Amino acid sequence: MKKRLSPDGHFEPEFVEGVRAIFEEKIVFNQILGVKLVDITPTVVTARLPMRPELVGHFAYNRVHGGVISASLDALGGVACLVAKAARHMDQTPVHRLDFFLKVGTIDLRIDYLRQGIGEFFDMRAEVLRIGSRVGTTRMEFFDPDGHMVAAGSGAYIVS
Amino acid sequence: MKKRLSPDGHFEPEFVEGVRAIFEEKIVFNQILGVKLVDITPTVVTARLPMRPELVGHFAYNRVHGGVISASLDALGGVACLVAKAARHMDQTPVHRLDFFLKVGTIDLRIDYLRQGIGEFFDMRAEVLRIGSRVGTTRMEFFDPDGHMVAAGSGAYIVS
Amino acid sequence: MKKRLSPDGHFEPEFVEGVRAIFEEKIVFNQILGVKLVDITPTVVTARLPMRPELVGHFAYNRVHGGVISASLDALGGVACLVAKAARHMDQTPVHRLDFFLKVGTIDLRIDYLRQGIGEFFDMRAEVLRIGSRVGTTRMEFFDPDGHMVAAGSGAYIVS
Amino acid sequence: MKKRLSPDGHFEPEFVEGVRAIFEEKIVFNQILGVKLVDITPTVVTARLPMRPELVGHFAYNRVHGGVISASLDALGGVACLVAKAARHMDQTPVHRLDFFLKVGTIDLRIDYLRQGIGEFFDMRAEVLRIGSRVGTTRMEFFDPDGHMVAAGSGAYIVS
Repeated sequence: MKKRLSPDGHFEPEFVEGVRAIFEEKIVFNQILGVKLVDITPTVVTARLPMRPELVGHFAYNRVHGGVISASLDALGGVACLVAKAARHMDQTPVHRLDFFLKVGTIDLRIDYLRQGIGEFFDMRAEVLRIGSRVGTTRMEFFDPDGHMVAAGSGAYIVS
Repeated sequence: MKKRLSPDGHFEPEFVEGVRAIFEEKIVFNQILGVKLVDITPTVVTARLPMRPELVGHFAYNRVHGGVISASLDALGGVACLVAKAARHMDQTPVHRLDFFLKVGTIDLRIDYLRQGIGEFFDMRAEVLRIGSRVGTTRMEFFDPDGHMVAAGSGAYIVS
Repeated sequence: MKKRLSPDGHFEPEFVEGVRAIFEEKIVFNQILGVKLVDITPTVVTARLPMRPELVGHFAYNRVHGGVISASLDALGGVACLVAKAARHMDQTPVHRLDFFLKVGTIDLRIDYLRQGIGEFFDMRAEVLRIGSRVGTTRMEFFDPDGHMVAAGSGAYIVS
Repeated sequence: MKKRLSPDGHFEPEFVEGVRAIFEEKIVFNQILGVKLVDITPTVVTARLPMRPELVGHFAYNRVHGGVISASLDALGGVACLVAKAARHMDQTPVHRLDFFLKVGTIDLRIDYLRQGIGEFFDMRAEVLRIGSRVGTTRMEFFDPDGHMVAAGSGAYIVS
């Protein structure tokens, strides 16, 4: 079977749609957060989070809760590991590759909070620094609408 | 004004109720999580999280989402810092001490995920390892109903 | 072959001596640090670091360098994972179990610095929070001679 | 007094030499490591570590010890915070700005180990993600001679 990865490093629509469904729907709590996948490549995954009143931290400010950031970045890092692993198994069908996600689990996570997160939406990205047969490591960033980095993170994930 | 701290190291009901209101109500996203404060002492704060379907991670399992854990432990560590700082300022009124919380912010957070979190509720605790005039450091734990540690964490908080 | 673990949860002298040799001699940089293993049990490993002038951080203070702490705790956490894994394979010979160490590697590490480390020696411990077939997680502590916690840490290790 | 920062964002030779002396000499343990400062700018600091036999981890491999990496990156992140803070106080003399370093201390540190570190030297960089009046946050990277990222890190530092 020939590689299904397109020349620009992107995946088949079926796989992309499957990753989106996992991230936005099958991970139930992500629906509460309301995070939406924007793009996936073998090493970088991006997403957007529309701000809503329920996501506020202390009511006296209008900032997004730190836990919303950590939860979103944790989930995005996991998806980045799934995608990075999938990119190494393009000989398998999209359905098989999507099943890898059932094996992905967060080992640990660090989040650095840099600035208050205020805005109508937030963009985030996860980059895979290393993907091995058992463990993947990612670095994540969370930006406000002006492009200021609100938080940075890193995570280790079991991938098998 | 004499110290209001009771001989067993606990705080006045007014202060305890104020901390509970901050944790359960004023931090808006904590209402989404549904975490409830159980007890506060100058060095340890405990809380309980009743499990609900919305808090699930991947729908194929019934596990609590890692982001629910990180968000809850982050918030609990912040409250532990508030309480530890308040314990050093018992000469101030409960209302003044509660205002300290407006200064508390997470600098960074680490969560180690140890086991899948399955159960009807989860108990958690945050212990203050150090409280300074500017920065506090806490260690947190998240347990399933059988007392197994599901996750451990540590956080640094700005407190002034 | 019957279990070689003694009733009090300790290991055979041959295994203990082998772990000591790995920690104090075969890990070359540990000789620079000068850390000495004190005791091993299946879940907790302890060590002691005699203070020396070369281990100082900024010369204006007499504090131990933060990197000495992180390096020592990193190494001790790895040994704790080795020992925890070995405790699950007591049907194998001590020599075989010691070979597990060749598979142990740090995935990531967090250190929280709590107080300045001043004293003629430092005691440290690493506790295994979870040992799996592929990944282990430990929590570490570093104490001054008066028993004050100077630093706390946590680490994830690949163990296979 | 006018700003002493040169148009390309670099510092006066006196300040650069002072930072080098702190990093390479006054932090005693850095002499054991043998790290050398390469360049400083207000947001990025770089250094190089020549490999030596004493810096090896397990003798069976020729890899640099993880603790050498964590110690070097910890120290470099601290210097990056010093420099970032100094860049905001160019109205003060170099000597005064160098004194800021006596206030810099690591709050916490995370290191992700990505690949084995093998080579005759290692290059590293620390970037300041945020510098506040009390706390700074940095992100660090450690590379082998081929430019592969061996480790990534992040640290929080008290700066006042």
